[in-house]
Order: sequence, then structure tokens, then C-alpha cells
Amino acid sequence: MTTIKRIVLASRPTAEPSAENFRQEETDLRDAGAGDVTLRVLYLSLDPYMRGRMSDAKSYAAPVPVDGIMEGETICEVVKSRHNGFAPGEIVRGRTGWCTGAVINGDVLRKVDTHGAPITTAVGVLGMPGFTAWSGLKFIGQPKAGETVAVAAASGPVGSMVGQLARLAGARAVGIAGGPDKCAFVKNALGFDAVVDHRSKNFASDIDVACPQGIDVYFESVGGHVWDGVLPRLNQFARVPVCGLVAQYNGAGQTDADRLPTTMSVILRRSVLVRGFIQTEFAAEHFDTFLNEIGPRVAAGEIRYREDVVEGLANAPAAFVGMLKGASFGKVIVRVASGA
Amino acid sequence: MTTIKRIVLASRPTAEPSAENFRQEETDLRDAGAGDVTLRVLYLSLDPYMRGRMSDAKSYAAPVPVDGIMEGETICEVVKSRHNGFAPGEIVRGRTGWCTGAVINGDVLRKVDTHGAPITTAVGVLGMPGFTAWSGLKFIGQPKAGETVAVAAASGPVGSMVGQLARLAGARAVGIAGGPDKCAFVKNALGFDAVVDHRSKNFASDIDVACPQGIDVYFESVGGHVWDGVLPRLNQFARVPVCGLVAQYNGAGQTDADRLPTTMSVILRRSVLVRGFIQTEFAAEHFDTFLNEIGPRVAAGEIRYREDVVEGLANAPAAFVGMLKGASFGKVIVRVASGA
Repeated sequence: MTTIKRIVLASRPTAEPSAENFRQEETDLRDAGAGDVTLRVLYLSLDPYMRGRMSDAKSYAAPVPVDGIMEGETICEVVKSRHNGFAPGEIVRGRTGWCTGAVINGDVLRKVDTHGAPITTAVGVLGMPGFTAWSGLKFIGQPKAGETVAVAAASGPVGSMVGQLARLAGARAVGIAGGPDKCAFVKNALGFDAVVDHRSKNFASDIDVACPQGIDVYFESVGGHVWDGVLPRLNQFARVPVCGLVAQYNGAGQTDADRLPTTMSVILRRSVLVRGFIQTEFAAEHFDTFLNEIGPRVAAGEIRYREDVVEGLANAPAAFVGMLKGASFGKVIVRVASGA
Repeated sequence: MTTIKRIVLASRPTAEPSAENFRQEETDLRDAGAGDVTLRVLYLSLDPYMRGRMSDAKSYAAPVPVDGIMEGETICEVVKSRHNGFAPGEIVRGRTGWCTGAVINGDVLRKVDTHGAPITTAVGVLGMPGFTAWSGLKFIGQPKAGETVAVAAASGPVGSMVGQLARLAGARAVGIAGGPDKCAFVKNALGFDAVVDHRSKNFASDIDVACPQGIDVYFESVGGHVWDGVLPRLNQFARVPVCGLVAQYNGAGQTDADRLPTTMSVILRRSVLVRGFIQTEFAAEHFDTFLNEIGPRVAAGEIRYREDVVEGLANAPAAFVGMLKGASFGKVIVRVASGA
């Protein structure tokens, strides 16, 4: 295994990315030095933040350079190890990028421990998306029993956890999702109290019906017309953790209701808290607490999740482009090693 | 003193209010019952929130009805008392509205104690505006030593306190004000580290010069183009207490930069906290702490303030209209009792 496949950023998209912005190529692995671990990639996680890395606009993280490998987190098997902490056959997660294999210093790897749940959960319900939900609720949303928690992209890896945690806190969980299949999943499989289809012509009034007491916590990851619908329904002292704005990543059109004075007026009039955050702010201090609290519940089936598995690295770009449009259903994972 | 003058809301403004939206009339005081206190109004406080009360748009407080007396806080002398807590000659503050005298139940009055500072400070630097500044910084802005605190309307009663408290916390205080006189006052009399004139053609680059390390806390009370200028200069983890949006109260025109996605994108990318609030949220628990901490400093001249005194109740409407346009300079107070 000295030659691997990888996917690089061929060009920066100006609006919606397309498969042409990516290029697959073959390359040789570098020689492993002291402390290095040689990895076979089993699974690649696809996540909306990657759209930001494709752009060179100012952000909290540096962009992927053109012709550079696409960033991403993977679940890998250790093939060879020159690091004391890892042995061949162990399963680890690391930021190898979109590739089939890598040589990487072991210090930045983390052994996968999912408390008995499948290893793919380490990049989903028990990984970054799950922790985003957990920390955004714990430190910003802080739902109380009897309150209403609404969440965008409710069938996705963050949203599905948000609603389930809200219910564990005694709150009413209202999911927002696109289309009847996702809505049925949110209501029936995930057990949310109510669900609203944002593609409905009656989206605004449907929210009113689903949230008769208004919205106390809105967990935002979408923006655009979903935010327009939620904004006027926020209660006083509502809390709005913002972990993404996927509907706006591609510079999509804005409606009249998108205008700042409306937003700011509501924030003012209802003493609303809007707080952007990235889960890394909390991870160093709190990730282990999260894992110990949630891992056993996932392993026991008390907390449910859905994965959308794509076969083969070559299909990663199309899957990623589709995910940004809402075509995926659940946590998107690419099976890089056939038979993994 | 059975006949008083009062100012009522004659009609609701659709944009900028004008003197025609107000009407002065005479009326007889009602008879005082058990628990009532008969008051002679010495000073009326004019504050931007009153613009909200003139409108019947949904808000945190009920609107003033058409033909109803304009709401407002006053400094009064007790003329007669049928309440055990008050005696003739005492100075109190209460929400009598825009009038020269009132009969009111004593339970809703508060004796004025300004630690030796002039009694007008009870509606200014030691009253609602001062407490708005103090509580917004203490519970939301939380400036740390070495950080940069920018504040809109810096020569006004809230802004002037914000900057001085920021300096006491070891932060760099940058005021934003309109015109050379106010800017000079902010820099020289109040002792801010820097000041920016929002009427300058170079407003945006002037902020850059005044805030070479960006902005960690922005205390918002203006909105509009001032917010547009500040927004791109907010640092990661910036905190934005929002206590008003005076530039937008009249439905003024918006710029392209007012659009929501820009605001929300910055909130997200820089983990910004934006929090609307009304000082009443904190007052019951914390007002006494504020007064004991700040009162002696005001009385000793360590914390400075400026009052803009208008003579006579009949001039209150014009003064109020001017205040919303930025024509006032310092805390606006109407001297209702000549010679007070």
C-alpha cells in the first residue's frame, strides 16, 4: 500500500459547488518516520463545514489550497505503526482528508471508542455532529422542561441529536425538515413531538401549529427561508445557537425578510440571544463528558441515528454537492474501503 | 394644585414623529385616596424607548393609547401624602408620565437617593440609563482588561457610562458619536481612549484606526449605518449587548450591508454573541448593587455625565423629536417646575 487515491480541490466554486471543482488523483505515500502511523481509510465523513474550506473568504479556519487534498475526518485502520500509542489493527479517527490511505503522526489521532456502537458513529452521533448538538444545547440553548425547542435539518446528524436531547430535558421537540420522508423519520423514528416541512407552502403557519407556545430554543444550522419562518416565532429570552447556515453557504438569494433590521429588532424586542459557535470551543474541556454520557445511550439504542452511506471515494464529490442541496438523508459517510 | 398640564399622544407617527403627534391639555387631579401621594413634577426624563410606546407594533411593553398620557419617568416633590412611606417635601421618582403633577399610589414610587449627586441623576447616570450600561456590561459584554469596548451614542447617558465603566475594567474605550462637539466631549471630558465620528465620510476606516485590535465588546443602541461599520470589525467571541436601535425606530432606509446573511454569517464565523435585553430583566435583583457601587463615584466626580436640560413641559415634544435625530447632547431632561 504505497500508492493511494485522494481527492483534491481542483478549483474554487463561486456558488453551488459541482463535481468539476474536485479531481481524483493517485499519489505515493511518504515514508513513515518515527512517531508516524500508516493508515488504511475505512470511512470518510462528509460535513457541511467543508463548503467553507473550499472558499478563500475570511473564516475561522484556513481554506484548502487549490490542488490541495480536501480536508475531512476519517475512520481508519492502523496498518503499520512507529508510534507507541497505536498498534496494527486498531481503529482510529483522524483528519487525513479525502483519501484511501495516509501516513500521519500518531499524536493527532484518537482511538475510536463508541461504547459498543458501530465505529461509524465516531464521526456521527458520537463524533463532531453529536457533540455540536450536545454542547450547543448545554452551553447556549439550555432548554428547560416545558419549553419548545425547534431545530433545523432535524433528520441530519446534528438536528436529530438536538431533538432527542431536548426531549430528555423535558422540552417539546419540533423538527424542521425537507420533504415527507425526512419528516416521517423525524416524527416516527426519532420521536420528536412535531415536525414541519420547510418545503410546504404553509411553512409559516405550520410552525405556528407545531409550536403553539412559540419557540424558546432554536438550533440554527440552515438560515435562509427557514430562519425567516422561525424568527417571528421566537419567544422572549429565546436562545439561538448557530452552528451553521447551510442554505446560505452558496450565496443563495435572499428574501425581503432576510434584512438585518428585522432580525435585530426581534433580537432587541424579545431579548433574544443569538450566539455563533464552533464546537471546538468546548471540545477540549467537555468532549469526554459528552462521550461518557451519550455513548452508552447510543449503544443501547436509546438515542437513534441514521446514516447515509455512499460507496467509494470517487463518489464523494457528488455526495457532498448533494448534501448541500438537502439530497442526503442522515449522516453522510463514504465507504472508502470496500467491505469495511 | 388641582389642575395640571399633561401631554398626550394625539396620533401615531408612521415614520419620524413630529410635534403634531403630541397634544398638551389641562386636566383636574383625581382625589387622593388611602395610600396615594400627591406629587409636583420637577423633572421629566426623555428617553428613546418612548418612540416604541408611540407605536402599536408588537413589543415588550404595551403602547400608549391614542389620547392617553405619554409614558415617562419623573423626579417629583411630595406635596401631600396618604401613604406611610412618604412625607411632604421628599423627592421621589415615579412613572407619572409627561405632566406637571399627579396623584399616584405610593407603592410604585421610589425615594431618590443619589449619594449626594444632583437629583436629576436619578433618571440619568444613576437611573435607568446608567443601569442599562452597567448591567449590559456586567451580564453580557463582560469586558476584560486589554480588550476593546466600542459604544454607540457615546456622548449619551448610556454610552458615556459604558465607556467609563470599560476603562475602569482595564479595557480600551472607543466611543462613536455624531459631530465634532460630541466627539470632543467623549474624548476630552469623558476620557475615552478614542472616538470616531459616524458622520465622517471615512467612518469605516476611522474605526479601523481607533480599534487596531478589532472590537471585543460592542454596546449597541443605534443600529443602521453605525452597525454596518462595526459589524465587520467584531472579533471572535465578541459580545454585543443590544439595548436599542434608535436609528431604526423610525423605519429609516436600509443599506445593502443591513442584510441578514451578512450579520448572521459574522455571528457564526466569529462566534459572536448578540443579546437583546431590557434593563428591567436585571433591575429587581441588581439595582441596589449598582447604586451603591456607582453612586459614590458619581457624587465624587470620578464618573462624569452631561445633561441636556429643556425648559418647560410644552417643549418636551420638540426635544423628544430632536433627540431621536441626534440633536440632543447628553441626558435629556425637561425642567417641568420652573426654578426646580
